[in-house]
Amino acid sequence: MNEDFLLRTPLSKRLYHQHAETLPVIDYHNHLNMKELAEGKSYDNLARLWLLGDPYKHRAMRICGIDEAYITGNASDHDKFAKWMSVLPRLVGNPLYDWSILEMKRIFHIELDPGETDAEWLWEQTGKLLSRPEFSSRALLERFHVEYAAPCAAITDDISVFEKISNIAPSLRGDSIIEAAGETAQKLEQTVQTPIHTLQDYYGAIRLRLDAFGRAGCRFSDHSLDDGFLYRREERHAEALFERSRKGQALRPEERQELSSELLRFLSAEYARRGWTMQLHIGAQRFTSSRLREIAGPAGGFAGIGNCCNVRSLTQMLDDFEKSPWGMPEVVLFTLNPADNAVMSTLGGSYSRGGTKGLVQQGPAWWWCDHLYGMREVFESLASFGVLSVFLGMTTDSRSILSFVRHEYFRRAFCGWLGEKAEKGDLDVKEELLIRLVKDVCYFNAKKRIRQQDTKKEGEREHAF
Amino acid sequence: MNEDFLLRTPLSKRLYHQHAETLPVIDYHNHLNMKELAEGKSYDNLARLWLLGDPYKHRAMRICGIDEAYITGNASDHDKFAKWMSVLPRLVGNPLYDWSILEMKRIFHIELDPGETDAEWLWEQTGKLLSRPEFSSRALLERFHVEYAAPCAAITDDISVFEKISNIAPSLRGDSIIEAAGETAQKLEQTVQTPIHTLQDYYGAIRLRLDAFGRAGCRFSDHSLDDGFLYRREERHAEALFERSRKGQALRPEERQELSSELLRFLSAEYARRGWTMQLHIGAQRFTSSRLREIAGPAGGFAGIGNCCNVRSLTQMLDDFEKSPWGMPEVVLFTLNPADNAVMSTLGGSYSRGGTKGLVQQGPAWWWCDHLYGMREVFESLASFGVLSVFLGMTTDSRSILSFVRHEYFRRAFCGWLGEKAEKGDLDVKEELLIRLVKDVCYFNAKKRIRQQDTKKEGEREHAF
Amino acid sequence: MNEDFLLRTPLSKRLYHQHAETLPVIDYHNHLNMKELAEGKSYDNLARLWLLGDPYKHRAMRICGIDEAYITGNASDHDKFAKWMSVLPRLVGNPLYDWSILEMKRIFHIELDPGETDAEWLWEQTGKLLSRPEFSSRALLERFHVEYAAPCAAITDDISVFEKISNIAPSLRGDSIIEAAGETAQKLEQTVQTPIHTLQDYYGAIRLRLDAFGRAGCRFSDHSLDDGFLYRREERHAEALFERSRKGQALRPEERQELSSELLRFLSAEYARRGWTMQLHIGAQRFTSSRLREIAGPAGGFAGIGNCCNVRSLTQMLDDFEKSPWGMPEVVLFTLNPADNAVMSTLGGSYSRGGTKGLVQQGPAWWWCDHLYGMREVFESLASFGVLSVFLGMTTDSRSILSFVRHEYFRRAFCGWLGEKAEKGDLDVKEELLIRLVKDVCYFNAKKRIRQQDTKKEGEREHAF
Repeated sequence: MNEDFLLRTPLSKRLYHQHAETLPVIDYHNHLNMKELAEGKSYDNLARLWLLGDPYKHRAMRICGIDEAYITGNASDHDKFAKWMSVLPRLVGNPLYDWSILEMKRIFHIELDPGETDAEWLWEQTGKLLSRPEFSSRALLERFHVEYAAPCAAITDDISVFEKISNIAPSLRGDSIIEAAGETAQKLEQTVQTPIHTLQDYYGAIRLRLDAFGRAGCRFSDHSLDDGFLYRREERHAEALFERSRKGQALRPEERQELSSELLRFLSAEYARRGWTMQLHIGAQRFTSSRLREIAGPAGGFAGIGNCCNVRSLTQMLDDFEKSPWGMPEVVLFTLNPADNAVMSTLGGSYSRGGTKGLVQQGPAWWWCDHLYGMREVFESLASFGVLSVFLGMTTDSRSILSFVRHEYFRRAFCGWLGEKAEKGDLDVKEELLIRLVKDVCYFNAKKRIRQQDTKKEGEREHAF
Repeated sequence: MNEDFLLRTPLSKRLYHQHAETLPVIDYHNHLNMKELAEGKSYDNLARLWLLGDPYKHRAMRICGIDEAYITGNASDHDKFAKWMSVLPRLVGNPLYDWSILEMKRIFHIELDPGETDAEWLWEQTGKLLSRPEFSSRALLERFHVEYAAPCAAITDDISVFEKISNIAPSLRGDSIIEAAGETAQKLEQTVQTPIHTLQDYYGAIRLRLDAFGRAGCRFSDHSLDDGFLYRREERHAEALFERSRKGQALRPEERQELSSELLRFLSAEYARRGWTMQLHIGAQRFTSSRLREIAGPAGGFAGIGNCCNVRSLTQMLDDFEKSPWGMPEVVLFTLNPADNAVMSTLGGSYSRGGTKGLVQQGPAWWWCDHLYGMREVFESLASFGVLSVFLGMTTDSRSILSFVRHEYFRRAFCGWLGEKAEKGDLDVKEELLIRLVKDVCYFNAKKRIRQQDTKKEGEREHAF
Repeated sequence: MNEDFLLRTPLSKRLYHQHAETLPVIDYHNHLNMKELAEGKSYDNLARLWLLGDPYKHRAMRICGIDEAYITGNASDHDKFAKWMSVLPRLVGNPLYDWSILEMKRIFHIELDPGETDAEWLWEQTGKLLSRPEFSSRALLERFHVEYAAPCAAITDDISVFEKISNIAPSLRGDSIIEAAGETAQKLEQTVQTPIHTLQDYYGAIRLRLDAFGRAGCRFSDHSLDDGFLYRREERHAEALFERSRKGQALRPEERQELSSELLRFLSAEYARRGWTMQLHIGAQRFTSSRLREIAGPAGGFAGIGNCCNVRSLTQMLDDFEKSPWGMPEVVLFTLNPADNAVMSTLGGSYSRGGTKGLVQQGPAWWWCDHLYGMREVFESLASFGVLSVFLGMTTDSRSILSFVRHEYFRRAFCGWLGEKAEKGDLDVKEELLIRLVKDVCYFNAKKRIRQQDTKKEGEREHAF
């Protein structure tokens, strides 16, 4: 892999090397382990840095028939690593193949050659380096020019840890507020030191925590709308449903949907009020193999892609968000099912607010879609059905600190794609416009989103209409 | 943009410049304002010709955060135009960027350079020209070599206006017959001067109007089957449902579906009998932002793409159409959700009639899908899942008279795509066959459809089986 | 069409000509007529070999408006052939165009030039050859280097005919076991000479037949999960439902689903126990035109593509398969709706077993998707969402013996695609890895699947976890 990886045309090379390559990284949604980062944890061996915490790699090993002992089981770190190395050359065409090479190159300056590079040599070579301070988690973060990263935290999590690192702020993972309102309320009673009996009590406690998140720099939230999600407009019983939920009583599916819908409306208004961006992660089917769920936990890399989302449900929800006194928050729609790309890109034109670019917009190719093919489909979709220049750009959504290489991958993919379209004549545009597009998508759109919110930090956002 | 826009290979250039470029235009479905055309309206300024009546452009402005005042609000024509010009350079990759350049080029011979062309200069320059007679709506129509255009009209509309222009005929927009049967019946009582109490009365009145449309040259009808459309085979209660509807009583959703299904069956038979082509526009989600609906009206450019259509419902409906004594009308399936392309292209092989090419077929990329990416997907789909040579080709479905440039865009896209496939070796075919394909798709297939129907104008079509 | 058809880059040419071209063919699922093969039937004329038994060609003729008399009707073989030849030049872009040329080239060494080749000349020329022994069905099979082919047979079919040809083994078409349990039970009473009253009786009889299929070399089964398929986890009433079905009583749709689900669970365990691969053909909509169904029979080439499959239903079913004492059988998922490609490719990572590569995987582009465009989409999807190197590769699923040319088509498409990706820089991989990939996908993965099962032929597979 040379320095022009994914950059075939001269224009692509110019766009990347002269304009995209050195921009700082903004990663507005990920799952980095804050405790490790705050402690400046260093890694005992390459398996611990590279493999053990990365469900993408676990998944590929399973597909290749590796025994679970070498994936999440009792085998030694070294033996797991060796199995991974044996699998890597068979991953040709999968993004893991390219990411792995980039990861070794950017961290260790090692040119990994799958199938050729000796696993034992690599183990030893990296082992020596990993004990050095410049390979601690904190130091690695510097290495990637990360200007802003937003690991997610639950509303009940201790976020004091975020104060320790300047370029890190929490993002809010809102699922527990919605899906486990009863338990979350119970935990919040402790956190905010107030009793929570009614839905209004719950809202009060949440608002206190949102304020705390805001003070810690939070500007992004996210919600999972998994396969089968259904929004319900009626909100007659939310108070009673919450109270039943609070008492530990089970709700029927329609009742759960009604309560969830009400909570999403409440939160969207709170996000809008604070100028936060609300990310919706749509369409995961997290229940596949019960066996793997038991072995590897709910985020163990075996989730499937669910059916296309219910458009009527989604558009009604967004319409109701817009109707709140605070209006629509900035919304980013991530779809796990690429058959919904056109739907998501087009929704960008269905809601608007003067002064806000890309109020509702599709996010970058997400999770299993995060590869060259998936990215290009999103680029095409955003450009054709929406407006590419307002695109918020890449975020990793990853648990691995090495995944920051995916910003490089994204930028190469984007510049490569643009250059190729221009060479083919599909884009008949002056280079200046493309340069501005590249800079905005790779950095400035996200930057402005954060800055814009900073100006609203103290007071509340003016009501726009 | 030079004369080889979208034509990279020598074959593409030959196909376009020697065979497609000078063919007349047949636009079998659009929303042109007939009153303006009949009056030979001229345009006060560029905003009125180019921007104010084009919801595609409004939508892009909203995505870019332009305040609604400058879109559909109280700002002056000039200021709306200036905002549009400011947005245009940020639309790189969107079809509006290319269409806008083509529109200025073909109408005013001005080379628009987004971001460079001075807005004030353009405003004044075009303002001078627009007062000349060769820039009236009628004259523009001539400019585009339009041989046949079919603006749509409702069954209750006055179609005498169509008599005034030789190359224009009405196409029937059938939605009001279906969705508002009660009100439409009331209006028809006036139009045809007969009382309408029963469904059979309604059918009688509709038949009279269809005859009038036929005499005015109508050969195409269209129906919207929006997101959530469901066809019901049972037809037991249609008479009673119509009568309730006629009396202004509300119907339950299943009842509305049952009545709609019966009306669609009736109309399909009438179309078949007359040799008309029935267009089905499938999958729009027209209810997104209530706010924009109120501001901009139901066709204000904020519609979304709905879920994939219910295939069982659609195939049953087409099956029932085929069972009528008049057999299946020629049907063109337009899908707004490109994830349904394969479904739609494949249905072309599921119904047939000896002597009719492409009896049921997918139409060109529609509405938000009408761009290079969407068109190519339809070309691939039609070719691979169906038979490309029977393809009826482009229609604009547009409200703007400038949109005839999209025929040029379509032809360039088609010849570009074919030439590229041949260069890559995916198409290993003699040039003569490609030339015939290009001519048929860009003009002759639609031409034959109109001619064929002309021969059936007077009498009724023979029953084919 | 020259020897480099579909192979544009030098790498593509090397991969195909040096590594893929001469590999034997394994066709693990098709609909060849075993009676004809066993008899070594020869063909009276080109229509009988090439056209009359091929619903793909019938479908294309219908789209082109050919009268049904010349497709499935009373016209002479010669006249049907002549109509087909008249249609062929209009099929540019459709796979039938290329397949037809390949078929004539590989069987008769005739360079077919659609639109140029004289139909009468071709009829006579091939007529002379067809009477020779080297053009019998058996001899043709040799010509295609078929090492293993698996025509499907129903559980009640006489499979003694399979003993006559060494490189042919039956695959089990399981649909009649599921969809017509009552009638199948009745037939099985005859076949296995035991009364069948209860579900357990039915299972006993099926097991005996599975053993017989196994002895005849069967290693693959397949089931159609058509548009609307729904899996039900509850299995409380299966015994009673079977008994009602056995007595000829009609079941309600939910009851049919419950019984089908139970039968699929039972069969999946039996397949797993025997080491068979279970193919699931998902998403056909076989009910389109009642008229064509009556004329051409249920497999007459007019089926449509159904809606995307219910992912929740599919994942629950696979989860239940995995929970059986025998674990998950090897499963191949075929989707007729390409909008489900990502869903299917991704499921490969949702179930696993140590020691088995690609336990659950997406199969090659199926039926109407079996063309260059469809194949490439599957390649991209498998590579990006799954792991391409475990891909089981091509099978024809065809009724025509000439369709073995589609293996050549597949290999050219695969090598062409890989070479092009490498040239563009999207694949930055050493040639050795690509060579191994090509060999595995075009032959060795399927070969190992058969061999692996051979070692388990006698005893039963060890329980893997």
